[in-house]
Amino acid sequence: MVTVNKNYLKLPGSYLFSTIAKKVAAYQREHPRERIIRLGIGDVTQPLAPAIIDSLHKAVDEMAHAETFRGYAPDLGYDFLRNAIAANDYEARGCRISPEEIFVSDGAKSDSGNIQEIFGIDNKVAVCDPVYPVYVDTNVMAGRTGEYNPAHENFDNVIYMPCREENGFLPEFPKETPDLIYLCFPNNPSGAAITKERLQEWVDYANKTGAVIIYDAAYEAYITEENIPHSIYECEGARTCAIELRSFSKNAGFTGVRLGFTVVPKELVRDGVTLHSLWARRHGTKFNGAPYIVQRAGEAVYSQEGKAQLKTQIDYYMRNAKVIYEGLKNAGYSVSGGVNAPYIWLKTPDNMTSWEFFDYLLDKAHVVGTPGSGFGAQGEGFFRLTAFGTYENTVEAIERMAAL
Amino acid sequence: MVTVNKNYLKLPGSYLFSTIAKKVAAYQREHPRERIIRLGIGDVTQPLAPAIIDSLHKAVDEMAHAETFRGYAPDLGYDFLRNAIAANDYEARGCRISPEEIFVSDGAKSDSGNIQEIFGIDNKVAVCDPVYPVYVDTNVMAGRTGEYNPAHENFDNVIYMPCREENGFLPEFPKETPDLIYLCFPNNPSGAAITKERLQEWVDYANKTGAVIIYDAAYEAYITEENIPHSIYECEGARTCAIELRSFSKNAGFTGVRLGFTVVPKELVRDGVTLHSLWARRHGTKFNGAPYIVQRAGEAVYSQEGKAQLKTQIDYYMRNAKVIYEGLKNAGYSVSGGVNAPYIWLKTPDNMTSWEFFDYLLDKAHVVGTPGSGFGAQGEGFFRLTAFGTYENTVEAIERMAAL
Repeated sequence: MVTVNKNYLKLPGSYLFSTIAKKVAAYQREHPRERIIRLGIGDVTQPLAPAIIDSLHKAVDEMAHAETFRGYAPDLGYDFLRNAIAANDYEARGCRISPEEIFVSDGAKSDSGNIQEIFGIDNKVAVCDPVYPVYVDTNVMAGRTGEYNPAHENFDNVIYMPCREENGFLPEFPKETPDLIYLCFPNNPSGAAITKERLQEWVDYANKTGAVIIYDAAYEAYITEENIPHSIYECEGARTCAIELRSFSKNAGFTGVRLGFTVVPKELVRDGVTLHSLWARRHGTKFNGAPYIVQRAGEAVYSQEGKAQLKTQIDYYMRNAKVIYEGLKNAGYSVSGGVNAPYIWLKTPDNMTSWEFFDYLLDKAHVVGTPGSGFGAQGEGFFRLTAFGTYENTVEAIERMAAL
Repeated sequence: MVTVNKNYLKLPGSYLFSTIAKKVAAYQREHPRERIIRLGIGDVTQPLAPAIIDSLHKAVDEMAHAETFRGYAPDLGYDFLRNAIAANDYEARGCRISPEEIFVSDGAKSDSGNIQEIFGIDNKVAVCDPVYPVYVDTNVMAGRTGEYNPAHENFDNVIYMPCREENGFLPEFPKETPDLIYLCFPNNPSGAAITKERLQEWVDYANKTGAVIIYDAAYEAYITEENIPHSIYECEGARTCAIELRSFSKNAGFTGVRLGFTVVPKELVRDGVTLHSLWARRHGTKFNGAPYIVQRAGEAVYSQEGKAQLKTQIDYYMRNAKVIYEGLKNAGYSVSGGVNAPYIWLKTPDNMTSWEFFDYLLDKAHVVGTPGSGFGAQGEGFFRLTAFGTYENTVEAIERMAAL
């Protein structure tokens, strides 16, 4: 008789964004005439840049002729894309990352969920609180987190690093030494950025303790300030302690195109095994490459036209971030984020819980955001708005909120 | 200090097709003037059908305009595709499968590797021998197989069901009762097909014992004979014991496009849990949907033009299968498969081992095939050729082999 993976049953409720989608759909059914503005899920709204569209059409045409048709892609990605990534995202920033250390995938969500597989079940995981739910949920599914504790809304065997106003929404070294440390900067959900000096401290800590940092840099394209690292490999020693996750979703609008990559330096060795070889084995066994046409689209991100067009796109979203940040500040809200990240993190007014504010905002302003408590216990009393809407919708949403 | 997943270290050697690729590359480097013909890996060579190309271009154009741009896809797939699958692959064959039971993914390799995650580690796995390596390797990685036994080239805690000439390359009920049963028909690598009556026996067996069948039907489009089921749901009772995996790689040439789907009927319950809910949770947490443009390409597979064009494509490959099957038979080889599948399974001549024959064929005929022993101990002494080459290459490869 088959048994199921009982770790799945420890997961409380459904995936955060599924819950929000259901709540919004139900509200819209009951109020069909209200125009809801969605600043909740981090989905982009601008169309793909012309350079990317051209590249896609060209690749599709190649698939139409036997001489240029492409079947199975190389497991780890086409060289044309891995080379472009190494040159532009790393070499240009003074980071020593070779194309062979870059694993192309169908997106950072898959990678951030799958990466824990190459580690033992006995590892102790540390996450920021609040946190992108995928890091925790995938470790729950693997059996690495212990039981769910409803009173504290957390798992017994996870180290939560509170990121609150008091510490500038940045984690501090935990009392108990973790084995696997998930860090995401610029941060989802809080929009907080980490300086190079602070990140260097984490790299040193990991090298000293033998921990591995899973560094999610999905939002690096939104960094506007100096001294904020775009990659953890800008820090000395990161090659022996850090894996970096990258996405094309936010810098190039690929949320519906699906492309990402993970960097595993060859010097990263634990238990006498190179993690690079383990991740290569996983890729080769459970994945069959990102689509050729999508990898060509990724290549176009690094072309001269692509870069210029995407800078305009990011500027567009960052103008929205400013509208939200300043609009809410002027309306008396306590806000952070929005400067090096497309997320604005606000304190709910009048001591409302995050979900109370969600319902209130949906009902009174017909604006959808994401309840901070959905990202962890320490997110309670906070709320995330994203800059990925259209400019017009963003302005209107903030006007509605300011008028409440 | 981080520990690694030590189950990975139990895997002997590298993934089969990586080994072959390396051997062929080395041979080509040493013999740059030889024209190697590849009938090894199951990769297609015909370009995408015009209906699919049109659909891709149209979808790319939609991504270029804000009004028609698509961001994150629904986790489980767009309705337009799930509806087309349900109507064409199931309803049209008298199978009761609803669109909600269809999970669209980036391909059957991912699904066949990931599906084991929703089951407990304590389950006993049964596989055919020879077998598609992904089924076994992903269970090894999860810790479900025990240790590797080099003397027998197998894992201690896996039930291997020998599929040899004596039993028509079909599995028999094992002595020990398994929990999870992987079946692939038409079979990779042997090309053997199973009749509806025989498959019904497996469904009855699973329902009686509480086992779950993972049914890989990636090659169903190649079935030419009557009474060979295209789906396990053609058998009575399969909705309470079977998960079906499907691919667009072989019926529509999507090896480099990446699209597949898995069917989990809502009646499939174990441990009091619907497997549908577990797989939905996995999809929602570790996957972010297949690309919109690729799902539109999948939709085109079911259009009237798409169907007609793909029938021509499959006929083309099946003509190759006939060339291989009859050419080798006339040359004195013992061959099977190739009638309901794009794979021909041949006995190595002169008692050569599978790898000896691989080297011999590469060296003497410059033809690449796949050693049967790479699919399991019982594949020793056998060799797989695929019908996915061009017609001209296939004819030449068989002429070269016949001339040896």
